[in-house]
Amino acid sequence: MLPRGRPRAMGAVVLLLLLLVVGFFLFGRDPEYGLGTTATLDEKPYGSRNRSASSSQLLLPSKCEVMLHVAIVCAGYNSSREIITLMKSLLFYRKNPLHLHLITDAIARNILETLFRTWMVPAVVVSFYDAEELKPLVSWIPNKHYSGLYGLMKLVLPSILPLSLARVIVLDTDVTFSSDIVELWALFDRFSDKQVVGLVENQSDWYLGNLWKNHRPWPALGRGFNTGVILLWLDRLQQTGWEQMWKLTAKRELHTLTATSLADQDIFNAVLKEHPNLVHPLPCVWNVQLSDHTLAERCYLEAADLKVIHWNSPKKLRVKNKHAEFFRNLHLTFLGYDGKLLRRELFGCPNQFPPGAEQLQQALAQLDEEEPCFEFRQQQLTVHRVHITFLPHQPPPPRPYDVTLVAQLSMDRASIEQLELGSRRKAALVVPAFETLHYRFSFPNSKAELLTLLDAGSLYTFRYHEWPQGHLSTDYSRWREAQAPYRVQWSADYEPYVVVPRDCPRYDPRFVGFGWNKVAHIIELDAQEYEFLVLPEAFSIHLPHAPSLDISRFRSSSTYRNCLQALKEEFHQDLSRRYGSAALKYLTALQQSRSRA
Amino acid sequence: MLPRGRPRAMGAVVLLLLLLVVGFFLFGRDPEYGLGTTATLDEKPYGSRNRSASSSQLLLPSKCEVMLHVAIVCAGYNSSREIITLMKSLLFYRKNPLHLHLITDAIARNILETLFRTWMVPAVVVSFYDAEELKPLVSWIPNKHYSGLYGLMKLVLPSILPLSLARVIVLDTDVTFSSDIVELWALFDRFSDKQVVGLVENQSDWYLGNLWKNHRPWPALGRGFNTGVILLWLDRLQQTGWEQMWKLTAKRELHTLTATSLADQDIFNAVLKEHPNLVHPLPCVWNVQLSDHTLAERCYLEAADLKVIHWNSPKKLRVKNKHAEFFRNLHLTFLGYDGKLLRRELFGCPNQFPPGAEQLQQALAQLDEEEPCFEFRQQQLTVHRVHITFLPHQPPPPRPYDVTLVAQLSMDRASIEQLELGSRRKAALVVPAFETLHYRFSFPNSKAELLTLLDAGSLYTFRYHEWPQGHLSTDYSRWREAQAPYRVQWSADYEPYVVVPRDCPRYDPRFVGFGWNKVAHIIELDAQEYEFLVLPEAFSIHLPHAPSLDISRFRSSSTYRNCLQALKEEFHQDLSRRYGSAALKYLTALQQSRSRA
Repeated sequence: MLPRGRPRAMGAVVLLLLLLVVGFFLFGRDPEYGLGTTATLDEKPYGSRNRSASSSQLLLPSKCEVMLHVAIVCAGYNSSREIITLMKSLLFYRKNPLHLHLITDAIARNILETLFRTWMVPAVVVSFYDAEELKPLVSWIPNKHYSGLYGLMKLVLPSILPLSLARVIVLDTDVTFSSDIVELWALFDRFSDKQVVGLVENQSDWYLGNLWKNHRPWPALGRGFNTGVILLWLDRLQQTGWEQMWKLTAKRELHTLTATSLADQDIFNAVLKEHPNLVHPLPCVWNVQLSDHTLAERCYLEAADLKVIHWNSPKKLRVKNKHAEFFRNLHLTFLGYDGKLLRRELFGCPNQFPPGAEQLQQALAQLDEEEPCFEFRQQQLTVHRVHITFLPHQPPPPRPYDVTLVAQLSMDRASIEQLELGSRRKAALVVPAFETLHYRFSFPNSKAELLTLLDAGSLYTFRYHEWPQGHLSTDYSRWREAQAPYRVQWSADYEPYVVVPRDCPRYDPRFVGFGWNKVAHIIELDAQEYEFLVLPEAFSIHLPHAPSLDISRFRSSSTYRNCLQALKEEFHQDLSRRYGSAALKYLTALQQSRSRA
Repeated sequence: MLPRGRPRAMGAVVLLLLLLVVGFFLFGRDPEYGLGTTATLDEKPYGSRNRSASSSQLLLPSKCEVMLHVAIVCAGYNSSREIITLMKSLLFYRKNPLHLHLITDAIARNILETLFRTWMVPAVVVSFYDAEELKPLVSWIPNKHYSGLYGLMKLVLPSILPLSLARVIVLDTDVTFSSDIVELWALFDRFSDKQVVGLVENQSDWYLGNLWKNHRPWPALGRGFNTGVILLWLDRLQQTGWEQMWKLTAKRELHTLTATSLADQDIFNAVLKEHPNLVHPLPCVWNVQLSDHTLAERCYLEAADLKVIHWNSPKKLRVKNKHAEFFRNLHLTFLGYDGKLLRRELFGCPNQFPPGAEQLQQALAQLDEEEPCFEFRQQQLTVHRVHITFLPHQPPPPRPYDVTLVAQLSMDRASIEQLELGSRRKAALVVPAFETLHYRFSFPNSKAELLTLLDAGSLYTFRYHEWPQGHLSTDYSRWREAQAPYRVQWSADYEPYVVVPRDCPRYDPRFVGFGWNKVAHIIELDAQEYEFLVLPEAFSIHLPHAPSLDISRFRSSSTYRNCLQALKEEFHQDLSRRYGSAALKYLTALQQSRSRA
């Protein structure tokens, strides 16, 4: 874009030169297109390796080499959800390696570290910085904006980001990309030597001070600038004495203005009013602001491309706007987008996967897609993206006898009574299971009530009609009379609900769908000589629900059933290897079960 | 791109000129970006209205005015599903009005006419052309390709498309866009005066004839061209005598080659081998071919941008390829994309909605988002995209006493026995409803079997425990003994399953969620003096399923229940208006039901 203040009508020469620059910008990195792709596959793409030296300063290096740096301040549960939609939109369009610098509180770090580790997006590096360290640097500034202390932290990014980092794009968590971020990065090259910060004009009359009576905004150049999207030239900032500059300005303004209203943005604007040569104005499409009093229409009605949308009203998606539906659709596109589809490599770039992910990727690549049980094997290796504490949750401090409910679930669905485990080791406490066929059901308050319901036929023992062997060993008639825990022996197909210590054997991930997950786990417990102790007062009741997708597949697909059989046999082979002749009884039981089937 | 055959090393002058052209191409239509967007919102965007006249031939007119024309041959159920994913990808990136020219058989037309009518995407016009008319023009050509006769129709498009249509992009149904189609359209401007067809090189060695022994492909220039994506300059084609040209070539080649192997593509290639000056080679990224023996890697490893992906293997998504996962992810992005999010306007362009859709849009816009029942009112006005016969289905020819099962459903879920209606008018035939609580259930073959199950407690009358008034009037004890249909009277909350003639009152769309849809319909029938006749031998049995999303919301949300109550009252007001004092009994019943609640 033309530097601010230069007259517009400079004629064809400037126009042509600009086009020249623009042409190089975008196509320098993509010699296939624009410069003309090869007409035949055997030729080297035109200009791909021998670019004109005279214009080299304008060319971007090839896609693998340009690592784009993005810094985001993110605190709390809500922002951690927002940032994921932002990241999905950003990753959808990007074609370059990314390094994310996330300044987080403990909550956001916990969530985002897990998320990015399990997401395993190639060519994305994430560094975390502790927002606590930045608090003392900004806590002296009173701020009325809902973003609080965190909203001020963009001012002090240079003091926490690595010194080696020359340039960074700073984003608010409430922006949505609809274009490739490399186009935004390329705008750094249009900065004059003196410019240190790239910003889009604020798209409301806030800083003009005429929104309502006695509205006294912070000083700004005209409508001022919005800090939802910032190009920050870090090393130049330091050279210009940025830290001292903004602190001086802020302190002086705070003599008359009691607090910032729009956090860091007020201070950025006050500084730039004094030092207009520091700012490089960015095209308005890079921060289309959907605030309450937005004038953004003037920008986007002329634009064919909206690049970044900024939900900078406290109302967020519910903001009123003639085109709200359009913008919501864009946002919902990425809100609902399955992030696993973004686990895609950048072609021709090496070392994109984090170390663990690479191995996993190789294991997945080695699977034979034509093999009938391919889907089972793929699922065993699949690492799902995990978003912990999606809703605010503060876990209580851990205590030695806490009980955690762990369940093996099909992806399409989600109680054991809490019990004291005592100090006993190698015991699996069996919780007898019952079943009701009624949707609305008053849970019995005691064993006596339960037995009354059982005798009245309102309850059955679990899967009494369909699969009694699953709980046969529990011995319901003994349980009726039992006053103390009693030991039972393993039998074929036994799959009770159990309470086990934390260090017990894990579920076998090969049984990811329907069937044999509990059976295999109980065998493993028995093989490791866990005692099965039935709890005399505990019980669980199964409520009716629709059949899972996987049980439907089990029932309808012989391939599914054959694969499950193959997995069972593999499981038994593993068992024999590990437990030798002691595992014989399980194999015998399996063979008997096969001959029954 | 450089015209074919021009030497590559032409030096800086040509390079600079090319960049100049390229710069204008993409940024001419987007003066906001590239030429420099306004620094302040009050200025006119630089260059937006007074472009340099000397280069006007290279500029695209503003986005509203450029109608892009796309022609696609689509026949049968599978292609009709494919084309929708293609359209979602195309519409996601496009920013111009589109005119689709769909050459369809009866099946595809039926599906796609309904789909586009209900989809109501702004700034999309769809014209249908009957593929039957084209069959005689190509049926003389033997074709071994799986696309059959339809695969040859691209050759004869000029004879069916309107004469006024100068240029058109022709697409196969198995392509996926990952870029804005206007960039492809812009390539027409690079055609020399003689060029009439734009094509990407074929990305396999097929036409080199060395894939296997005795493989005799049709003649082609080198590797030949792929016809999955074609830029067709229609008026020039006609001037060059295209029709005669391709027919002569095809007839001559068919003397020695018994049939086409790759349909139209073989003939296009044979013609272009004879007339190489007719073809404008397109950059390879515009047709990245994922065929079985693809060499596409040579194209995309160099490219930053893939523009169009072509699933031109008969294996489609299951094709083997080092980067198959990457391409599948791109395709799955649009396969899973909710097409309703594409109902978004092009900013600043007038008359984008089809006539009916405009009214609907206005009605939706008039709703008050802050009103507590907003969501209910919005749902009443919502027109869902309808994809009929998603799976192949041939309806039998209609007969006068056909029975159609119509059900009011929540979106998250989906039997009445077939009966002869007889000649009786204004009768609603009641099918008594029962309920089982068992997942696996053998449906009784007769009323006698049903009664046995009922007496054994394996079956209940419908909602016996929860809501007996819903079927009270059906009078199950009378039904036990009934040999002939008997008439019953309406009572409050009566909601039997009924068989009614086609011209009966429709369901009231205000009850879109849980509750009162059947009740209101039965009231309407009663008000219109339909007789309720219970069928003595028919019955239906409700099987257990998970509660619907809407019933959960009804149970958990007082707003939901209040809104439903408000809708009931509106319904009664309408009823009083239409039926006067005759409707009094329903209101009395409602008030009694309220006092109970």
